[in-house]
Amino acid sequence: MEKTVRELAQHVGGTVQGDGDMLITGAATLSDAGAGDISFLANPRYEKELHASSASAVIVGQKIDCPDKTLVRSGDPYYAFMQAVVLLYGHREHEKVGISERASVAANAKIGIDVDIHDFSVISHDVQIGDNSRIYPNCTIGPGTKIGQDCIIYPNVTIYDGCTIGDRVTIHSGSVIGQDGFGYATHDGIHHKIPQVGGVVIEDEVEIGANCAIDRGTLGDTVIGKGSKFSNLIAIGHNTRIGPYSLLVAQVGIAGSVQVGHHCIFGGQVGVVGHINIGDNVKIGAQAGVINDVPDDQSIAGSPAWPITQTKRSLTLLRDLPEFRKKLRGLEKTISELLKDQ
Amino acid sequence: MEKTVRELAQHVGGTVQGDGDMLITGAATLSDAGAGDISFLANPRYEKELHASSASAVIVGQKIDCPDKTLVRSGDPYYAFMQAVVLLYGHREHEKVGISERASVAANAKIGIDVDIHDFSVISHDVQIGDNSRIYPNCTIGPGTKIGQDCIIYPNVTIYDGCTIGDRVTIHSGSVIGQDGFGYATHDGIHHKIPQVGGVVIEDEVEIGANCAIDRGTLGDTVIGKGSKFSNLIAIGHNTRIGPYSLLVAQVGIAGSVQVGHHCIFGGQVGVVGHINIGDNVKIGAQAGVINDVPDDQSIAGSPAWPITQTKRSLTLLRDLPEFRKKLRGLEKTISELLKDQ
Amino acid sequence: MEKTVRELAQHVGGTVQGDGDMLITGAATLSDAGAGDISFLANPRYEKELHASSASAVIVGQKIDCPDKTLVRSGDPYYAFMQAVVLLYGHREHEKVGISERASVAANAKIGIDVDIHDFSVISHDVQIGDNSRIYPNCTIGPGTKIGQDCIIYPNVTIYDGCTIGDRVTIHSGSVIGQDGFGYATHDGIHHKIPQVGGVVIEDEVEIGANCAIDRGTLGDTVIGKGSKFSNLIAIGHNTRIGPYSLLVAQVGIAGSVQVGHHCIFGGQVGVVGHINIGDNVKIGAQAGVINDVPDDQSIAGSPAWPITQTKRSLTLLRDLPEFRKKLRGLEKTISELLKDQ
Repeated sequence: MEKTVRELAQHVGGTVQGDGDMLITGAATLSDAGAGDISFLANPRYEKELHASSASAVIVGQKIDCPDKTLVRSGDPYYAFMQAVVLLYGHREHEKVGISERASVAANAKIGIDVDIHDFSVISHDVQIGDNSRIYPNCTIGPGTKIGQDCIIYPNVTIYDGCTIGDRVTIHSGSVIGQDGFGYATHDGIHHKIPQVGGVVIEDEVEIGANCAIDRGTLGDTVIGKGSKFSNLIAIGHNTRIGPYSLLVAQVGIAGSVQVGHHCIFGGQVGVVGHINIGDNVKIGAQAGVINDVPDDQSIAGSPAWPITQTKRSLTLLRDLPEFRKKLRGLEKTISELLKDQ
Repeated sequence: MEKTVRELAQHVGGTVQGDGDMLITGAATLSDAGAGDISFLANPRYEKELHASSASAVIVGQKIDCPDKTLVRSGDPYYAFMQAVVLLYGHREHEKVGISERASVAANAKIGIDVDIHDFSVISHDVQIGDNSRIYPNCTIGPGTKIGQDCIIYPNVTIYDGCTIGDRVTIHSGSVIGQDGFGYATHDGIHHKIPQVGGVVIEDEVEIGANCAIDRGTLGDTVIGKGSKFSNLIAIGHNTRIGPYSLLVAQVGIAGSVQVGHHCIFGGQVGVVGHINIGDNVKIGAQAGVINDVPDDQSIAGSPAWPITQTKRSLTLLRDLPEFRKKLRGLEKTISELLKDQ
Repeated sequence: MEKTVRELAQHVGGTVQGDGDMLITGAATLSDAGAGDISFLANPRYEKELHASSASAVIVGQKIDCPDKTLVRSGDPYYAFMQAVVLLYGHREHEKVGISERASVAANAKIGIDVDIHDFSVISHDVQIGDNSRIYPNCTIGPGTKIGQDCIIYPNVTIYDGCTIGDRVTIHSGSVIGQDGFGYATHDGIHHKIPQVGGVVIEDEVEIGANCAIDRGTLGDTVIGKGSKFSNLIAIGHNTRIGPYSLLVAQVGIAGSVQVGHHCIFGGQVGVVGHINIGDNVKIGAQAGVINDVPDDQSIAGSPAWPITQTKRSLTLLRDLPEFRKKLRGLEKTISELLKDQ
């Protein structure tokens, strides 16, 4: 779609400085943008890229200046850019297919209005699916599971029996929700399976990436809080509860019975041991190994994870260990000579 | 299901101390349990939780006391609790569906008695499936693969050609068994594929979590030993052999041609390089990186992995590096002053 | 298949030293090989294994000697062995099934000659599939995606809309190509989805392992370069570009907008942060955490990753920290006594 800078500025609640009539046909990062593209500068640290960019217009904050460029000023440039991208490109459109004759839908499943169920998906008995949700091909939804309205379940997803998916939830391909948690009682060297009779609750507006695996609870539920977003290949253990609006980057693994607060951010490949509490607004650096409770608002990193400034200092000094050793040896030599002299 | 404490005690081989007639309707951890629930205390370290719990009855060892609670004494409280959970809730029941007309079953496949093959699963030519096994929807079983009796293959599992699955094996959704191992010969900068002509053998009573990936052998088999249990998102390389009764927590990765003994425990996100031997009863801490052979009965941690006490000591001292540096500088200053004075 | 040593030597361009008429029926590593097997010795470090091996013939370089064994001399023994394995065993054969009536193929999809589409796979509208490619069961190929010639897409693979797969590409089961990247603009504590309108380009001769996840680009494409090979459970972020002929071992995670050169090697479980550049011929040790640009030809390891010699030295000294502390304390004591004496 094609818009003038003025139309885009109105749409994102910003103000134009420069040529409001210019036509914008695309969006791109500052370095990739060319003529006809709108871009953004959210972090003043990259101001140099603004001046070097070939973008026709750039969304910026209130304090940035660039006289030779058409600017759109906004209180939150990245959010405004997101709105511009939605206006220019839209979200993925979903073809209406209705309920395919090549899908398998149990007679007693309750299917809402305008639901799409694609070929070769299986909707088991006692399943409920809310209005306007779509189940792409080759998915299996287990008995008694409830899916809310406006959900998108991409191909090859499995949701086991007795799980609850809220409204406006998106689950990408290959993810598995509700498999049995890892629970065994070992007796005489044999691991005996503990029935996993809890479920999984995925609250409204959650998005789950590709090939994730979220265990059902042993007794009671595993819960993914409202508006949380998962990248790919993430493992969540049984009975873990993740607060609303948390972000988990790819390949995070959280063991069982962990409590995570709201608005937490987990870097890629973070691991968390079971049975701990992570507060609200906690930030965890990539590859960290979290083995203790974390208070609210803390930033941690490292394995084992410590407050990030402490970790950075120690890891920097780790680099200096050869120098330390040299100095230690020098001191020992000096002192042994001193002692000889006495 | 509802049971008296006495019935539960008899079932688990324990003895009642307190009100044997009390009705139990559920099971829960000490902190979650309420009226009507049975719980357990396996580790005396958590005895405080026993006294604070609202559980109606608690399974304990021989030495724990708690006069105001109904207790069931057992030699292995966690195993007894598992038995109680099975009695109260049972394992997942599997609806008998027989062989669906919407499944695709090769004419020469040998299918046992009371086998379920759900919609949209593909059973290729020369496959054998033992009595009472069930293949959930959207699975693909490759040519010549053998599956034993009483197996459960959950939706969206792929088992490649020529693999052997024992009896009472469970494989959770999305897992892949028998894809080609990562084998290439690089010549003039191009990676040439080495045919992967071995198979995968999964022995009896193994359980594999969701979205795991187990490579077939290059020549000879990859083997997962009897009664071993895998959590989710685990990668096993070609020709690796895992001994019986080992436990692998989520996101473990083991490269090719590794030998693992029996009763080993791998923490989450452990990585193991190829071509090494890990003994029996080895315990490996989460996120460890194992690069050398490990003798029997050793506990290791860290990346690279060392004996756990050594790793813990070093990582604790890592924290003290800023203090070390300060002391070193102090010593240097003192000594240089000493030398000046001389 | 059965071949004489002479036939094998001719096939791999090598020369026979010993009994060229000997019949070879299999191939194996030096330690596994028995009578009738051909093996190889690529690394002279393992020459002991050559002498101990029961192989009937061994492919070796020019400088190795072993008078009691039949040898095949080659300039690149491992590559020659690969060629021998292909001759003796061949690559997996794919049964010709044509287009199954139980597959779902859109009316306007362009399907080449000799294409196999197995049961329960979905080929969406506007898809193109080149000659002699095969789509195994339970795959979903999204609208507008193009797949080249001679591709193998194993069961349960999902390729989203608008992706481009080159010629002679292999994708193993459970992998997902083209799911939305992890892009949100957070405003007032709510994460707003940024449309992911780019695609994925997988160039010729790439092989992708099982259960990988490759994000589509936000704007512009994610690219996997020609002849690169992925093991299992690998996550690639949006707009990342991987140069030709790179190797990624299992569970590697690369965040978004990373540039990777050609002929790089990533060890297992390596993590790479977003928006950095990795040069050509870079080698990254297992479990490394890469947070900065890496120049051409460098070998790095550790988390954070440094040049490998530096990392090895520091990690070795990490082990010596208890000794360092002891020495520091000793020095402090000696000096304080020295000072007392003055």
